[in-house]
Amino acid sequence: MVTIEPIEKLTTQLARLPGIGHKTAQRLAYHILSVPEAQALELAGAITAARREVHDCPVCGTYTDVTPCAICSDERRDGSLLCVVCDPRDVTAMEKTREFHGRYHVLHGVLSPMDGVGPNDIRINELVERVRTGEVREVILATNPDVEGEATASYIARLLRPMGVTCTRIAHGIPIGGNLEYTDEVTLAKALEGRRAIG
Amino acid sequence: MVTIEPIEKLTTQLARLPGIGHKTAQRLAYHILSVPEAQALELAGAITAARREVHDCPVCGTYTDVTPCAICSDERRDGSLLCVVCDPRDVTAMEKTREFHGRYHVLHGVLSPMDGVGPNDIRINELVERVRTGEVREVILATNPDVEGEATASYIARLLRPMGVTCTRIAHGIPIGGNLEYTDEVTLAKALEGRRAIG
Repeated sequence: MVTIEPIEKLTTQLARLPGIGHKTAQRLAYHILSVPEAQALELAGAITAARREVHDCPVCGTYTDVTPCAICSDERRDGSLLCVVCDPRDVTAMEKTREFHGRYHVLHGVLSPMDGVGPNDIRINELVERVRTGEVREVILATNPDVEGEATASYIARLLRPMGVTCTRIAHGIPIGGNLEYTDEVTLAKALEGRRAIG
Repeated sequence: MVTIEPIEKLTTQLARLPGIGHKTAQRLAYHILSVPEAQALELAGAITAARREVHDCPVCGTYTDVTPCAICSDERRDGSLLCVVCDPRDVTAMEKTREFHGRYHVLHGVLSPMDGVGPNDIRINELVERVRTGEVREVILATNPDVEGEATASYIARLLRPMGVTCTRIAHGIPIGGNLEYTDEVTLAKALEGRRAIG
């Protein structure tokens, strides 16, 4: 087999991306070779530029190219309401709802003793500091509804409650457009547990 | 909505890759921001290096980082047997079979009057020239078995036959591990048409 070293290297690098297997990586590598050179270099440049210009906001921890980030420096946002998420992309997801007008705190991870991730490995101390020194009244724990996410939310709630701040957890239930029949029993149980009066 | 320009740009560039939609592009962009910087720059570097070092072989037209390519310069390969393919990745696919020991000619496209691609837009003149001046006895037309691929194969066969060279077409039929029940009728008809004596 004839191997062309630069193509192999590119394939290997592309295959490190999540959800991209060797076969897809190879297809992408050949695509990158087949497009006009300027287009390929634009992609390489966008990667380099993103890494050079984007950093964690020193206040909330989300990705930003200004300091502090646009959300932290927006005076119209409610500083008494703090939404705690695991990852910068969760901030993007929350912002898309256009329903949340408070501020964020990005943990950059979840507690996971199995993977050796403890409270000092994610931005929990920074959160405690913000609550201690700031105007925060309510902390919305919006970690993912999985084992680590739940444990992280519980841990933070226990830590913050003595500080006189209200901790809330986002609701679990049937997604809009979802279907009772195809909803797993844990979600359905949570939906039942979280029922609210109507009419 | 807060948009972070460098992330948006990276997402846009990633979404230009085949099979990568906006949602996947966004996931990849955030992944690229979350990995160690060196890893992200390795990917950017691999793209730039591939474009800088890889070019078309001036003889056969496949991708190579040496001139002529490793296949064209391999004295053990049979120069009387020429396999014509559309794309450099088809050379890789053929090489994987380890069954072909001739040389290649990459067209870099197929005839497609609808898209304005005529005989002068793909490497057909170079093929004629190779057949005219070389030692080629048989040309295997290994374009894809679709409308354009078939048309391109027929066109080339008509062009080369008067030059005293044998033109052959790769066989169409049921893929190994395939299933008669799930094989479309055109493939099945081709398999029947191409039947061979056994036993």
